[in-house]
Amino acid sequence: MTLTHGLPVAPSRGRLRPLGLDDVTIDGGFWGERQDLNAAATIPHVESWLERLGWIGNFDAAVEGRLPGDRKGREFSDSETYKLLEGMAWELGRRPDPALQARFDAIVARVAAAQEADGYLSTMFGRPGQAARYSDLEWGHELYCFGHLIQAGVARARTVGLDDELVRVSVRAADHVCDVFGLGGIASVCGHPEIEVALAELYRVTGQRRYLDQASLFVERRGRGVLGEIDFGPQYFQDDVPVREATVFDGHAVRALYLAAGAVDVAVETADDGLLAAVTSQTLATLARRTYLTGGMGAHHEGESFGADFELPPDRSYSETCAGIASIMLNHRLVLATGDARHADAIERTLFNIVATAPAADGRGFYYTNTLYQRVEGTMPDPDEPSARASSAARPPFFAVSCCPTNLTRTFASLGAYLATADDHGVQVHQYAPSTIRAVVAGEPVEVKVATTYPATGRITVTAVTAPSAGWSLTLRVPGWASGARLASAGGPAEPVEPGYVTVAGPATGESVVLELPVDARWTWADARVDAVRGQVAVERGPVVMALESVDLGADVATARVRTDAAPVEAEGRVLVPVRTVVPHDGGWPYGTRTEDDGAAERLVPLIAYHSWAERGPSTMRIWMPEG
Amino acid sequence: MTLTHGLPVAPSRGRLRPLGLDDVTIDGGFWGERQDLNAAATIPHVESWLERLGWIGNFDAAVEGRLPGDRKGREFSDSETYKLLEGMAWELGRRPDPALQARFDAIVARVAAAQEADGYLSTMFGRPGQAARYSDLEWGHELYCFGHLIQAGVARARTVGLDDELVRVSVRAADHVCDVFGLGGIASVCGHPEIEVALAELYRVTGQRRYLDQASLFVERRGRGVLGEIDFGPQYFQDDVPVREATVFDGHAVRALYLAAGAVDVAVETADDGLLAAVTSQTLATLARRTYLTGGMGAHHEGESFGADFELPPDRSYSETCAGIASIMLNHRLVLATGDARHADAIERTLFNIVATAPAADGRGFYYTNTLYQRVEGTMPDPDEPSARASSAARPPFFAVSCCPTNLTRTFASLGAYLATADDHGVQVHQYAPSTIRAVVAGEPVEVKVATTYPATGRITVTAVTAPSAGWSLTLRVPGWASGARLASAGGPAEPVEPGYVTVAGPATGESVVLELPVDARWTWADARVDAVRGQVAVERGPVVMALESVDLGADVATARVRTDAAPVEAEGRVLVPVRTVVPHDGGWPYGTRTEDDGAAERLVPLIAYHSWAERGPSTMRIWMPEG
Repeated sequence: MTLTHGLPVAPSRGRLRPLGLDDVTIDGGFWGERQDLNAAATIPHVESWLERLGWIGNFDAAVEGRLPGDRKGREFSDSETYKLLEGMAWELGRRPDPALQARFDAIVARVAAAQEADGYLSTMFGRPGQAARYSDLEWGHELYCFGHLIQAGVARARTVGLDDELVRVSVRAADHVCDVFGLGGIASVCGHPEIEVALAELYRVTGQRRYLDQASLFVERRGRGVLGEIDFGPQYFQDDVPVREATVFDGHAVRALYLAAGAVDVAVETADDGLLAAVTSQTLATLARRTYLTGGMGAHHEGESFGADFELPPDRSYSETCAGIASIMLNHRLVLATGDARHADAIERTLFNIVATAPAADGRGFYYTNTLYQRVEGTMPDPDEPSARASSAARPPFFAVSCCPTNLTRTFASLGAYLATADDHGVQVHQYAPSTIRAVVAGEPVEVKVATTYPATGRITVTAVTAPSAGWSLTLRVPGWASGARLASAGGPAEPVEPGYVTVAGPATGESVVLELPVDARWTWADARVDAVRGQVAVERGPVVMALESVDLGADVATARVRTDAAPVEAEGRVLVPVRTVVPHDGGWPYGTRTEDDGAAERLVPLIAYHSWAERGPSTMRIWMPEG
Repeated sequence: MTLTHGLPVAPSRGRLRPLGLDDVTIDGGFWGERQDLNAAATIPHVESWLERLGWIGNFDAAVEGRLPGDRKGREFSDSETYKLLEGMAWELGRRPDPALQARFDAIVARVAAAQEADGYLSTMFGRPGQAARYSDLEWGHELYCFGHLIQAGVARARTVGLDDELVRVSVRAADHVCDVFGLGGIASVCGHPEIEVALAELYRVTGQRRYLDQASLFVERRGRGVLGEIDFGPQYFQDDVPVREATVFDGHAVRALYLAAGAVDVAVETADDGLLAAVTSQTLATLARRTYLTGGMGAHHEGESFGADFELPPDRSYSETCAGIASIMLNHRLVLATGDARHADAIERTLFNIVATAPAADGRGFYYTNTLYQRVEGTMPDPDEPSARASSAARPPFFAVSCCPTNLTRTFASLGAYLATADDHGVQVHQYAPSTIRAVVAGEPVEVKVATTYPATGRITVTAVTAPSAGWSLTLRVPGWASGARLASAGGPAEPVEPGYVTVAGPATGESVVLELPVDARWTWADARVDAVRGQVAVERGPVVMALESVDLGADVATARVRTDAAPVEAEGRVLVPVRTVVPHDGGWPYGTRTEDDGAAERLVPLIAYHSWAERGPSTMRIWMPEG
C-alpha cells in the first residue's frame, strides 16, 4: 500500500534495514497497551489542550490577520501542533481511523492556510508588529518548527505517500529553508537543532538532493560560534565545538541529541564515515559517562543540560522526556548504521524507564523531567491547569512549554518500528514485545510471531509463520544486563548465550526459537566515579528500574537503609528488599564526627517499577537507596 | 569623632551591643592583611572596572540626557556603584585617606547629580525611551538599588555623621520610597529584597520612624503573591509564604537572606518577638539542613536558590559569595539580638571559607560561586575580560553581573565590627584576630588587646590594656568545632571549656586570659542525610576547611581515595592525608555489579586551605574525598 512501509527512519545504506509500521505490529502486552492508550487518550487529550490554549488557533489568527495581537503560547508553540500531526500520522499509518483522519485533515488545512506564498510558515515572526523573520536565530525556533513540520510531512509520505497536503506544505517549507539558508544565503543555523534530521529524511522521501545538502550545511556550520552570545554560553546550543570534533555530548540535552541524530543521517547519506564515527563515539561516551540508570540524559536543571562526566545527581536529574525520545531517535539510527547492540540496549532502557514513565496511567498527565529521587512530597497537579514549570512531583496535564506530551504521541504511535530490522541474511529482533514481524529476506517473505509477557517474564518465543525456502538467520538481542540468558534453537536444548546479538538458523515454518532472559530482580551499583550515589544501591528487574516509594515504606524514603547481602526477594509478583528506617540525629550543625543512625528493625518492603511511581498521591521516591 | 562608632548595624535594643570600626581595629594577621589588600587592590580594581564598563558613567549619561541610548550594564548596575561607595565609606571610616576621599567625593557628586527632584534615582527607568518607574517590580531592581544607595548613606552617617552629601541623597531617596510605597501608595515590594534592611538602618541613623514603618510594610506585604508570576515561581523572591510563617529559607539565597536581615532589624526595632523568633528559627533550620560545610548557601544553579533539606551537592554548590556575605549580615544581627553562639560560629565559618575564598590572592579576581568540587580543569580567566557567567574554574576579574566584587569591598572594610560586642557587664569576643577592642562597660572604659596567629595556631591571648576599676567580665566564644579547648584565666591554670560562650572575670590591667583552641586538622563527616557526600570525608583545621587539589595530588582528584583510621598528619605547616589514586574500570555502561578499583600504593598528599585553591593554574579540586 505504501512506498516506504511506515518507516520513521529510512537510510539508503547501513548495516541493517529498518522495518516499519507496515512490517511490524505490536500485539498487546506492555507496549501494545500503551500504544492503544496513546490513541484513545493521549492524542485526543493533547489535541484538546492545543485547542484550548489557542496554539492551533494561532494558525487561524494568522490567516485572519489577528496576529500578533491574538497570538498564544511561546515562540515555538507551532511545533507542538506539528508533533501532534506527526503522532496522528503514525497512528493513522498503524491503524486507519476515519474520525481521527478527519480531525487530522482539519488541522492540516488550518496549518496549510497559514503558509505564505514563498513557503515560510510561522505564527510568531514576520508580520507587522512581529519581529522580522530570522531576526532571532538564537531563540526564535523558526527552523526548529520547520523541522517538526517536515517530520510530520515525512510521516505522511511514509504512510500514505507523496500525494498529500501535509507533504506539500512540508516540501514548500523545506524549499524555502534551502532558498534562504543555502549557499549564498544566511550562513547560520537555528538555536535549536531539529531541521537537520527533518531535511535529511525529506531527502530520503523525495530524492531531492538539495535537502540533504542543506542538512549537511547546517551540521557543518555549527560549533564555530555562528550564533550570538547567550547567558548559557555557546555549548548550550552546541555552537562551541564543530560536530565532528566533539568527544561527548554537552549543553542542552535535547538540542545535542537532535543534532546528533541529524548528523548520523547526513553521515549515512553522504557516506561520511568520519562523521559517523565521531557521532558514534560521542554517543558511546555519553552512555558510559553521562547517562542515568534510567537511560535519562541531562544532569542540570540550569540550561537543561548535560553535566560533567559522572556528574549524575539523582535528585537533580533533569532527564527530560524529550531527551529520552531524542536518545532513542539517535540510537535507532546507530543500530541501523552500525548494528551495535549497545545502541539497542540504550533504546530498551530508555523506553522502559523514561518513555513508559512520563505518561500517567490514564494517558492524560506527563512528566517533563524524570527525577531519580523525589525528596519532597509535592501536591498533586491540577488536572485543569497547565504547569508553569517543567519539574513537578507528579504528572501535570500540560505545560506552558509542552514539548514532551506531543513528543510522546509520535513516539508511541511509531513504536513498532524500533522492534526489528532485516538484512540480506535474515531478521534481527532488538526489542521484545508480543508482535508480528514481516520482512523480505533475499527476495523471499519471512513472517515471525513473537510471543512473550516481557518484561514481566523473560521467556521470548519466536515462531516462524512463514519461513523462506532457502536458509535464513534469526538474530536476537541479549540485553547487556542479561547475564545467564539461555537460548533454545528450534528443537534444541537451551544453551547459554552472552549479551549482544546471538544469531541462529532461522526456524522452519511452524517452528520456534526460545530466548530465556533472567529478569529476576538484581542489585545494581554505580561506577565509583558517580559520587552522587556512592554507598547506594538500586534494584533492576529485567530492563525495568525499580523504585522505593514512601507509600510502600510508610515513611520518607530518606530514612531507608537497605541490606544487600542476599538477592532482592520476589514474591507474589512483587519485588521486596530488606529495609531499616533510621532516625537521624538532629544536632543543629550537620557536619562533625561520624555518627550512626538509630534504626528500626529490618523488614521487607516492596519496590515498584519506576515507570509507575507517583500514581498513589503525594510521595517521596528514590531509585538509589543507601546501604547499611 | 562620630556619633555611632562606625557601626554597620546599630540596633536600639538586643542582648549585645555592637562595637564598630572606631572601637575595634584589626592589627594585621589573616584578616588584617585582607583588609589592607581590599584597600590597596580590590577597591581601586572594582572602581576601575565600574568606570571601564560605563556603569558609573550611566549617572553622567543620565545628567547629560544620553539615556537610554548610552546606558551600559544590567538593570541593577547602579547598585554596584553604591556598594563600592559603601566599601569606600567604611574604608575611610577605618583609616582616613585623602586620595580615596577625593575619589569617593567625585563619584558621590556624579550620583547626586542624577537624582531627580522628587528623590527618584535610577539610570534604568523613567526617562523617555525607558520603561516607566516601577513598571517591573519583579525584575527591575529599583528598590534594591535604593537599598544599596541607602546602605552607603548609612555607612557615611556612621562614620562622618549626617552632614554629608551621600546621606542627603539617601534620605531623599528614602523619602521618595516612602511617598510611593507607603500606605495608600503602591502596595507591593521589590523582586529583590534589600530596601528593608536599608530603611531600618536609616531609621536608626535618623530617628525618622517612617523609614522603619516602610521597612515593616515591605516585610509584611511579602509572601502573599504580591508580585507577578515568573518562571522560577514565587518562592524565588520569597513571595510564596509570609516571612513570619516560613520555617526555613527557600528560593534565591541572596534574596532570602537580605530579606531575613531586614526582618530582624524590623523585629528588633518594633519589639516584635514573634517575628524575631520566626527568623531565628528559619536561620537555625537553614544552618542545620541547607548549609554547606564552608558556610555556603544555595545548592541550585537554577534560580541561584536553596535546595531541599540536605540536598547539598558539592559539585553543584552555588554558594554565591553574596549569599555568604548576606548570611554574615543576618547572623551578626542575630548574635546581637540573641547572644546565641551558633550565629557567631556561622559567621566564622563563612568568613574563613567563603569571604576569604572569593577574592584572588592579588585582590583582583573573584569567585561569584564557590563550588566544593571542581570536576573539570577550567581555563584561567582572561584578566582583561569580565566573565559572562557566574561560575568559573578560577577567579575572573569582573562579571557581567558583578554583585560579588563590590559586596566584598564593603565586607572587608567593615570587618572589625564583627569581632566583638559589649553589654552592661563586659566585653564579648566572637571572632579571633590580632586586634584592639575598646568599649565602655558600666560607664568605664575598657580596652583589650587580642594577640594571636589564629587560625594558623589556636592560642588566643586577651590582655587588658585598660580595665575598669569595678569588676567586669570577659566572654570568649569557643567555636562549635573546638572540642578540647582550654582556657586559662589571669594567672590560673588552663581548664577545659565547652563550645559556646565562656565568661570569666575580666583581667586586671596588664593581665591576660589565654584561650587554647585545638586547631589540629581533623576528619569531618556529614549527616547521613546529605546523600551527595555519603562515603566521603572532609578535613577541617580549626575554622578552615581544607581541600585536595590536583596540583598536589598529581592526578585528577576524582581518582583519590583516603584512609581515615588515623588522624590527618601535620608536618612542616602542612596537612597531609593518606591517599590512594585508583584506576577506574571503564566498562562502557557505568552500572552493574559492584566493582573494586585498582589502586596505586598509598602515599601522604598535602591538602591546602580551601580559601587558597586555584591559585596555581588550572586544576580539579574537592573538599569531600571518598574513603576507601
